[in-house]
Amino acid sequence: MKWTKTHIFTLKEAPSDAEIPSHKLLVRAGFIKKLAPGLYTYGALALKAIRKFENILREELNKEDAIEVLMPVVHPKELWEETNRWGEMGAGLLKFKNRNNHEFCLAATHEEAVVDYVRHELKSYRDFPKNIYQIQTKYRDEIRPRFGLMRGREFSMKDAYSFDIDQEGALKTYDKMYKAYQRIFDRLGLQYRIVQADAGNIGGSQTHEFQLLADAGEDALLVSDKTQFAANIEVCPAIDPVPYVSPHTSELPVEKFATPGAKTIADLEKLTGIPAKELVKTLYFSANEGLDPKDKSLKAFAVLLRGSDEVNPIKVKNLLKMTNPPLMLTDEEVKEVTGANPGSCGPVGLQIPIYADNGVQPLKNYIVGANEDGFHLKNVNHGRDFQITQVADLRMAREGDKCPESDGRLKPYRGIEVGHVFYLGQKYAKKMNGVFLDKNGKSQFYEMGCYGIGVTRTVQACIEQSHDQDGIIWPKAITPYHVHICHLDPKDESATAYVDVLTKEIETRNWEVLVDDRDERPGFKFKDADLLGFPVRIVVGKKGLEGNQIEVVNRKTKEVFKLPKEAVVQKVFELLGN
Amino acid sequence: MKWTKTHIFTLKEAPSDAEIPSHKLLVRAGFIKKLAPGLYTYGALALKAIRKFENILREELNKEDAIEVLMPVVHPKELWEETNRWGEMGAGLLKFKNRNNHEFCLAATHEEAVVDYVRHELKSYRDFPKNIYQIQTKYRDEIRPRFGLMRGREFSMKDAYSFDIDQEGALKTYDKMYKAYQRIFDRLGLQYRIVQADAGNIGGSQTHEFQLLADAGEDALLVSDKTQFAANIEVCPAIDPVPYVSPHTSELPVEKFATPGAKTIADLEKLTGIPAKELVKTLYFSANEGLDPKDKSLKAFAVLLRGSDEVNPIKVKNLLKMTNPPLMLTDEEVKEVTGANPGSCGPVGLQIPIYADNGVQPLKNYIVGANEDGFHLKNVNHGRDFQITQVADLRMAREGDKCPESDGRLKPYRGIEVGHVFYLGQKYAKKMNGVFLDKNGKSQFYEMGCYGIGVTRTVQACIEQSHDQDGIIWPKAITPYHVHICHLDPKDESATAYVDVLTKEIETRNWEVLVDDRDERPGFKFKDADLLGFPVRIVVGKKGLEGNQIEVVNRKTKEVFKLPKEAVVQKVFELLGN
Repeated sequence: MKWTKTHIFTLKEAPSDAEIPSHKLLVRAGFIKKLAPGLYTYGALALKAIRKFENILREELNKEDAIEVLMPVVHPKELWEETNRWGEMGAGLLKFKNRNNHEFCLAATHEEAVVDYVRHELKSYRDFPKNIYQIQTKYRDEIRPRFGLMRGREFSMKDAYSFDIDQEGALKTYDKMYKAYQRIFDRLGLQYRIVQADAGNIGGSQTHEFQLLADAGEDALLVSDKTQFAANIEVCPAIDPVPYVSPHTSELPVEKFATPGAKTIADLEKLTGIPAKELVKTLYFSANEGLDPKDKSLKAFAVLLRGSDEVNPIKVKNLLKMTNPPLMLTDEEVKEVTGANPGSCGPVGLQIPIYADNGVQPLKNYIVGANEDGFHLKNVNHGRDFQITQVADLRMAREGDKCPESDGRLKPYRGIEVGHVFYLGQKYAKKMNGVFLDKNGKSQFYEMGCYGIGVTRTVQACIEQSHDQDGIIWPKAITPYHVHICHLDPKDESATAYVDVLTKEIETRNWEVLVDDRDERPGFKFKDADLLGFPVRIVVGKKGLEGNQIEVVNRKTKEVFKLPKEAVVQKVFELLGN
Repeated sequence: MKWTKTHIFTLKEAPSDAEIPSHKLLVRAGFIKKLAPGLYTYGALALKAIRKFENILREELNKEDAIEVLMPVVHPKELWEETNRWGEMGAGLLKFKNRNNHEFCLAATHEEAVVDYVRHELKSYRDFPKNIYQIQTKYRDEIRPRFGLMRGREFSMKDAYSFDIDQEGALKTYDKMYKAYQRIFDRLGLQYRIVQADAGNIGGSQTHEFQLLADAGEDALLVSDKTQFAANIEVCPAIDPVPYVSPHTSELPVEKFATPGAKTIADLEKLTGIPAKELVKTLYFSANEGLDPKDKSLKAFAVLLRGSDEVNPIKVKNLLKMTNPPLMLTDEEVKEVTGANPGSCGPVGLQIPIYADNGVQPLKNYIVGANEDGFHLKNVNHGRDFQITQVADLRMAREGDKCPESDGRLKPYRGIEVGHVFYLGQKYAKKMNGVFLDKNGKSQFYEMGCYGIGVTRTVQACIEQSHDQDGIIWPKAITPYHVHICHLDPKDESATAYVDVLTKEIETRNWEVLVDDRDERPGFKFKDADLLGFPVRIVVGKKGLEGNQIEVVNRKTKEVFKLPKEAVVQKVFELLGN
């Protein structure tokens, strides 16, 4: 392909809304262009990379007998009401009314649609297993879209949905998809981790995320330094490296004491000289999820943590079997429940459920708010002074925590979630009457799994992991073109003839070539070649041809080879791996 | 591909909402499944046909240096306001507000989006010509979606947009695209016509529709029996085969006469004995397009036609340079304007513009409504009794009308519009500041064209034209599979071994094979093979193999060949054309 025959435009400056390198580079290289926040046009080059990644997805999924279909983007409300997700999905699900006043949404996921698609046809155990996938546009009404394709509104996903007759079959399918995903991300040749994760409002009991490692990743991961254990911080078990043993052997009498102006754990630490990790903080949440708009009740509960720990809302959600993480009470609501302002509140005397993190369990004779402004209580002990409803792991894990599988320690990474596999069980089958007749003629619910890969997100994530100060370094598997010929003298006939011959020879092995035939200065062309980032660059000019010296450059290593004409193609094939 | 490894399900009965053969067949063969009215899931087989058609589109467009990109489905209101089409597009443009209360639409077409995409990059005359296309989901909020993929809400289109520096270049590009479209539809091997058409609210002065011929087509076409002339009835010039000459030589005095109960032309014909073609009817419309919601004025005008003719609202729209066809006045509005109920109204004494069809011009001493209930006027003559604002071609053309290019006659056809090419001129460039610097450094507006092909619609239209009472007859170019092997004894090892060998041999020439390996009766499999409609069927059973007699069937002609094993592959290649 000749540059002048396509539509490529590069920019010197990244737009002001681009915060991370991959977003800046995609825009600067003209791969994407913003129509509105979170809405991008994919240019010819970006589309080539996307299509190549789609084909990798198809190849690996078809190996597992997954069947490609295409479901609508627009769904009727009635479909989502069958699973209650019309309400549960929250404001991210974009809803609208059509001209006939019927309600619809732009689908963010397709569990309901796929069950509707198969539920009249999968009737007998002989119809299983089935694994149905699509590569389709999705929509999430992000409040603040950012990071380009990473957190956009309109994006492309590959989503697969599996149907099995029992749990054993479903877990076998889960395993096949897990391995297909490994093959897919292996083919990109990038660094990734498979981590334990939360199922969000998809539901399901077993789930793993595929995370491409990158400093700008939105997800915090913790990885064992001894085993294969890796988890998203959202669900990572928090285990103290050294168990705490209280120095107190007996429970002392409770005392109220004045703590004027002490509103935070830091204040209290300063005032009392007791370290934060031996203080107890009380947080207040509501278990009312707001799914029933008529239900305005507060349903308050408290969570106790050591002063040095952070609450993990996902763990609280999962403990209480909620659909979404609970909302914290407002200051007014806290006062209504405790009688005091936040900063002076504690668990003693409350009439609400109290959940305590594991870290609070071994503490004795500790300090908590007195539920009276400006006062705290010391020598408080659970069991004696108040009752804990349940002790559980409710804090955020952190670097240095113990590995749950060994005596190793956890190390932090940042990741970009590019894939996610879920074992769903019978959740959707039960809500949507997904039944089949088993071998004995008995009606049973089938078991499902769902499996997503962010197509456009992965393409950008590759760049986030693979770039340098000059531009993109495309993985060979999805690079729009493999070879970038900087044709320095496009008006020179013999140079052009050589470029044409060279292009054809390289194309014999199905490597794709872009020829920069613009009437521009060499330095300008080299800069653009680095920015676009195809694996191999060849520089062809009249002067080089006269001296029989052609420059071949490895984009990744910047290594330069000055070769006679007859050695060029061989070097290109060598650099590309065949 | 084995039937049991994919997800194909056939139905005995078509759903009650399917009115035309192609819709019935697509559903019965399990190619599509309705999620909600106008929203369909494309099954594995349909998707294969769609992808093949998409590849034909890409191949032919890339030959013309068209560049594929992908633009968003969701567009912000501000974009469409630049061209006033936010209001002009009418209720078919689905609009919604997001969670931040910003307004968006689901794009039905992408002129605005593509101009926004290129307007900062196409700066110099050297950047032209450019032709940018995409294959993307489109949405139209149809009130009554019907005919399956033919008039759905969500559908797939290929839309291309060309940019040239002047009209000469733009018309050259138009011609290239016209020829590319011919090649595309030629490759389907189906009957189509290229007809003159109306530009609708896309705008533009030159436009052709590509119409696949089919009895169930929604468009009425008129085609010359002498020349290449063909037009959509919406724009077809209406020329009387024999010009009318009035028998009257002088204008007689007007007389009012009672016509109790005569409300229609047929009533009047009966009452007076004068044939409809010599009577004059008056229709009332409003020129208020409702684009400005504050403007509630009526802006009434009248259209005169012979009693035997039908008004063509598109011609009226174009004469008055309106954006959409005008709305007829309600009975109350007619009474307000004329003082009488429809049926007794006429042009005499009205204070509104009056447009007359060519057919009215030669009439003399004719009858019109008296604008008084129950009365008509006879011996009315324009010029004397009332003034015509403009005489024009305003009636529907019909079978037997004169060909505008010869002394031939027009013949009617029904067609399905599958493609449309428009020359747009500077309409969008002017509204969206699409400028470039010409050779002299002067800023100029560029010239555009736009070119659409309904992807999913074309796939269904192929079936509408190519089927029989037993099922689909796929055109070879887009058939999901080429060969359908009915494997009658899937449990027999040697039969299965033969089927495997046969499949591999056929696949060596890149023909695709579906093997029906279900545990079903032969008759059931044959019926499904006819329904699915792949070009060649092979029947393999234990018995046939023992007698060395394999059945090969041509789906289209139903011709059956009974052949020894060694002759099967050769016959298949012969039937498929290589």
